[in-house]
Amino acid sequence: MLTETQMQTALQAYLEALNAGDAEAIVDLFADDASIEDPVGLGVKKGREALVAFYRNAVNTGARFQLDGPIRASFSNTAAMAISVVVALRGTPVRIDIIEVMNFDEAGKICSMQAIFGRSNIEPL
Amino acid sequence: MLTETQMQTALQAYLEALNAGDAEAIVDLFADDASIEDPVGLGVKKGREALVAFYRNAVNTGARFQLDGPIRASFSNTAAMAISVVVALRGTPVRIDIIEVMNFDEAGKICSMQAIFGRSNIEPL
Repeated sequence: MLTETQMQTALQAYLEALNAGDAEAIVDLFADDASIEDPVGLGVKKGREALVAFYRNAVNTGARFQLDGPIRASFSNTAAMAISVVVALRGTPVRIDIIEVMNFDEAGKICSMQAIFGRSNIEPL
Repeated sequence: MLTETQMQTALQAYLEALNAGDAEAIVDLFADDASIEDPVGLGVKKGREALVAFYRNAVNTGARFQLDGPIRASFSNTAAMAISVVVALRGTPVRIDIIEVMNFDEAGKICSMQAIFGRSNIEPL
């Protein structure tokens, strides 16, 4: 099992790589066969190629990611965090409140990620 | 599929019932065969009897539950929230930062709940 610190460090690195616009560094945190569901309910993407494409697109929007409160670890290989994202949607700046849940494999890589938010969590700024 | 408002209303009612100390009202929000993992990594409880016992014990601690940030809905039957709990652990008041993830069935009842926190999320006050 991973330590809580290992998982929290990985989630912090994930946010830093997002804000640095470094899609490769983000995807390096994931296992090769990892899956992401972002947002939950609109389809799962799986595998390095799909993840790189997804995160390239995400960072190309110029979105800024902020941690809201402490990163939650757990008594297993799950961690979660509340974040807010400021991004322009069709030209309008919005804030999106998201909770992301990550599961890790024994090698310390993220094997799955779910980003939980709905339309009601998108607010014009 | 449920509306985002339906899920957010249920999570708000869950917090209010916790703070009201009403274990039956909490469990009424759940499906009869619902399962909870609280905290994640330390075992799953399933079914109304197990949930009533769990929540009776939780409210008997006198814990106070506070929502930290907006309740996240989603584009499916999943919702999540960041909360903090103030409770006495072996006589010492602590704050526990938790992220709870709920899945709903089509009847609008919670069918599973995961409470994500680790030892590092427990802070003496």
